[in-house]
Amino acid sequence: MQKIEAIIQPGKLDAVKEALIEAGIEGITILEARGHGRQKGHTEFYRGREYAVDLLPKIKLETVVSDELAEKAVNAIIGAAQTGSIGDGKIFITRVDDAIRIRNEDRGEAAL
Amino acid sequence: MQKIEAIIQPGKLDAVKEALIEAGIEGITILEARGHGRQKGHTEFYRGREYAVDLLPKIKLETVVSDELAEKAVNAIIGAAQTGSIGDGKIFITRVDDAIRIRNEDRGEAAL
Amino acid sequence: MQKIEAIIQPGKLDAVKEALIEAGIEGITILEARGHGRQKGHTEFYRGREYAVDLLPKIKLETVVSDELAEKAVNAIIGAAQTGSIGDGKIFITRVDDAIRIRNEDRGEAAL
Ligand SMILES: Nc1ncnc2c1ncn2[C@@H]1O[C@H](COP(=O)(O)OP(=O)(O)OP(=O)(O)O)[C@@H](O)[C@H]1O
Ligand SMILES: Nc1ncnc2c1ncn2[C@@H]1O[C@H](COP(=O)(O)OP(=O)(O)OP(=O)(O)O)[C@@H](O)[C@H]1O
Ligand SMILES: Nc1ncnc2c1ncn2[C@@H]1O[C@H](COP(=O)(O)OP(=O)(O)OP(=O)(O)O)[C@@H](O)[C@H]1O
Ligand SMILES: [Mg+2]
Ligand SMILES: [Mg+2]
Ligand SMILES: [Mg+2]
Repeated sequence: MQKIEAIIQPGKLDAVKEALIEAGIEGITILEARGHGRQKGHTEFYRGREYAVDLLPKIKLETVVSDELAEKAVNAIIGAAQTGSIGDGKIFITRVDDAIRIRNEDRGEAAL
Repeated sequence: MQKIEAIIQPGKLDAVKEALIEAGIEGITILEARGHGRQKGHTEFYRGREYAVDLLPKIKLETVVSDELAEKAVNAIIGAAQTGSIGDGKIFITRVDDAIRIRNEDRGEAAL
Repeated sequence: MQKIEAIIQPGKLDAVKEALIEAGIEGITILEARGHGRQKGHTEFYRGREYAVDLLPKIKLETVVSDELAEKAVNAIIGAAQTGSIGDGKIFITRVDDAIRIRNEDRGEAAL
């Protein structure tokens, strides 16, 4: 199992969510975040206005998927979040050792 | 060391927190989140009302524990968060390589 | 690559952010959190007032860095966040398997 964490522009959340569902990814968790990448001191556009890049609002999306679906999930996120402009975001991939569905105590990939 | 991440119903936070403390787990971090599992397009109950399951409010709880305490922590969370209804939540387990207590620079399990 | 997660006092965020930038760390993500460590039932100071330590406001900062920069990042966080008082916070280190820059699909350390 792998955890895919994506930090994306808030305005891309709906498109990314739909792309993941179409790719067969069933569970996602969303967190409100702030962040900066490499353009510290430079500017970035947010909702059509230019901001000094200090800590801009970002969405952090997390989905734990089977190894088999991981690359598909990554491509879904890229396909929906990429504009080609700075600030499009990042994806990080980490190995997850176990998953449990609290309702029925399913374990492993069956719990995803 | 292992990181236990649990996404639970917000109304279960107090019970889960108490169960972890009783299990000897000393440190926890809580984040406000939103999410959906497998019932996209179906409905789920939140505070007694029925919602279309798009992105419902969830609590994300994180605790880093010794390997020895990991299964105890998982059982404490399940025991307090399980109702048997859809939407009860998920637990994910990931290996953590090091921990540091900032106050005194303790490292590893001594820092938990 | 390694993910450094630091849970710090909210008042230390600016100092920690500056210390990371000076250490050459370019990307960071910030989340608002709440938490408790070992002093459950005891008290902790927050903005000059004493609180029963239940769930106090904390900042969770995440940065994914090359293996080479990991120890430097940890030292920057400690240097800026340590006061010697209880509640200074924790750092957790986890291995990250891949990173992707969404704008141009850079992978691995080139994406950080
Ligand atoms: N190394 C990192 N660790 C943790 N979070 C990061 C890292 N890099 C970027 N982020 C998060 O991703 C968000 C978007 O980053 P961003 O897309 O600006 O990356 P970048 O490397 O500057 O690429 P670009 O040149 O395309 O802007 C940041 O605001 C931050 O929240
Ligand atoms: N694979 C996953 N990756 C990341 N977050 C997930 C995943 N699955 C579930 N979640 C999070 O956990 C929350 C609760 O999920 P939920 O309990 O509805 O899972 P489920 O698989 O639909 O099980 P059930 O059939 O019991 O409802 C979701 O709202 C989401 O925030
Ligand atoms: N084991 C842990 N797992 C997850 N989060 C933790 C853990 N320990 C601490 N935290 C988070 O870090 C915050 C700060 O912890 P704190 O610095 O009080 O740790 P402590 O072990 O009690 O050390 P001290 O004795 O210096 O206070 C907590 O409020 C919580 O959010
Ligand atoms: Mg950038
Ligand atoms: Mg569900
Ligand atoms: Mg403490």
